Amino acid sequence: MATEREKMTAGEPYDELDGELTARRDYMRQQLEEINHITDNQNRNDRFKALIADTGDNFFVETSFKFDYGFNIHLGDHFYANYDVTMLDTCPITIGPYAWIGPNCGFYTPIHPLDPVLRRDADVELGAPITIGHSVWMGGGVIILPGVTLGDNVVVGAGSVVTKSFGDNVVIAGNPARVIKPVPKHSDK
Amino acid sequence: MATEREKMTAGEPYDELDGELTARRDYMRQQLEEINHITDNQNRNDRFKALIADTGDNFFVETSFKFDYGFNIHLGDHFYANYDVTMLDTCPITIGPYAWIGPNCGFYTPIHPLDPVLRRDADVELGAPITIGHSVWMGGGVIILPGVTLGDNVVVGAGSVVTKSFGDNVVIAGNPARVIKPVPKHSDK
Amino acid sequence: MATEREKMTAGEPYDELDGELTARRDYMRQQLEEINHITDNQNRNDRFKALIADTGDNFFVETSFKFDYGFNIHLGDHFYANYDVTMLDTCPITIGPYAWIGPNCGFYTPIHPLDPVLRRDADVELGAPITIGHSVWMGGGVIILPGVTLGDNVVVGAGSVVTKSFGDNVVIAGNPARVIKPVPKHSDK
Repeated sequence: MATEREKMTAGEPYDELDGELTARRDYMRQQLEEINHITDNQNRNDRFKALIADTGDNFFVETSFKFDYGFNIHLGDHFYANYDVTMLDTCPITIGPYAWIGPNCGFYTPIHPLDPVLRRDADVELGAPITIGHSVWMGGGVIILPGVTLGDNVVVGAGSVVTKSFGDNVVIAGNPARVIKPVPKHSDK
Repeated sequence: MATEREKMTAGEPYDELDGELTARRDYMRQQLEEINHITDNQNRNDRFKALIADTGDNFFVETSFKFDYGFNIHLGDHFYANYDVTMLDTCPITIGPYAWIGPNCGFYTPIHPLDPVLRRDADVELGAPITIGHSVWMGGGVIILPGVTLGDNVVVGAGSVVTKSFGDNVVIAGNPARVIKPVPKHSDK
Repeated sequence: MATEREKMTAGEPYDELDGELTARRDYMRQQLEEINHITDNQNRNDRFKALIADTGDNFFVETSFKFDYGFNIHLGDHFYANYDVTMLDTCPITIGPYAWIGPNCGFYTPIHPLDPVLRRDADVELGAPITIGHSVWMGGGVIILPGVTLGDNVVVGAGSVVTKSFGDNVVIAGNPARVIKPVPKHSDK
């Protein structure tokens, strides 16, 4: 039988008051409170790496980095996140290598029902994963919604709200984000 | 004669350098600096509740929660706010029971004059209240402007900028926020 | 020959791993971590002023104020910034006197190449300055992009993403920001 953590990670309805999940959230908050005050870059980033499921070489995040669980965050090599990035990782957040993430970006996988009775009385929690290819560059203040997939070499304009998926080699921007132009091919230059 | 606090709360021009208001702001900053570092959920939330005019059962806010005064914040039972929510409560901010507030949301009641001479030379400060019904769900990064009223069961898409009022049972999104669709009736399901 | 700091400030490609720049960023992070916890307004603001190239009378910023270097920030008299303002000052950020900056605003001067090969393999970093006139009022959550110039008396609606330049005496809003209406003349009132 699936644990609540397994159901949550799969995007299925789960009990957010489950003991394992509550204990993990509490532990993460304590860890984040400690780590986000560490100004030694090596020490801070090593501490973050120990809490995140997958990280690689050249991992660097500025304070104050926040997430829910860490066990559903999967990052490639060469990951940089500027100030105040937030990842709500009830479902997997997967980002390929060579990622530049601007300040104040939010990656949100949780979903609540639109039906207020289900949301309020049944307290149903669910979610959908976020999956991003290699070589992404996000400007500051970008929001990525549950279920979004982005391809490789995508550039996301600052302040974009990304509500649906996009393929490779596009510049997207706006609220909701739309394709603005293709990414230039290297041979074009 | 009305105090500056009473004028401010009523949305009328007031003197922001008034002694009572300045002392309150200073005290709140000290309290917030302390409280936002408390990782024990019960302790942190109890401390927040002591500073806010009205809160109810099942009040839970993540760090770093920030506001101006606290005495103009009126929340119902079952209030949850995720990371980094900000409430500028020069005028009343009233939110009904069963509220889900995503990370990085801002509730802003202060208004400055558009006329630069009034704003700059007369230093006029005023505001307008924010009033939200029961069972609201706001995604992350939502901004609610001064004077906005939202009805019951409203869902606000992540990254929305809510510049005007909306009634009950609607999903709104965008910048500026517009009605996207009705909230499904429970009997529809 | 230009130093990396000089090249960066001029908006030209530079080496972000340069020793002087890395040391400055590390020092700033340590200073910001200290200063943003100071609740005594005079002390906090004096400490910030010591790190910023130009500030004037009546400088007041709330916590948590963040920037990259400080040496490229040039502010006039009567500067007020609310909670959680971020300035990425690889290039100069210049703001005239009498500025009201809402919470959670971001001023971002860095630029990366759209070409993923240049961004990823060559690791090219560059930027463009932000220049704002006197008597600006920005609502909360505003983002100002690299290269933007705003004139005098500009009002920027909350949640705006300012992607291009605007002249004097306009109210702008939206994503991307557009002119909504002129600023009223004082004699009109």
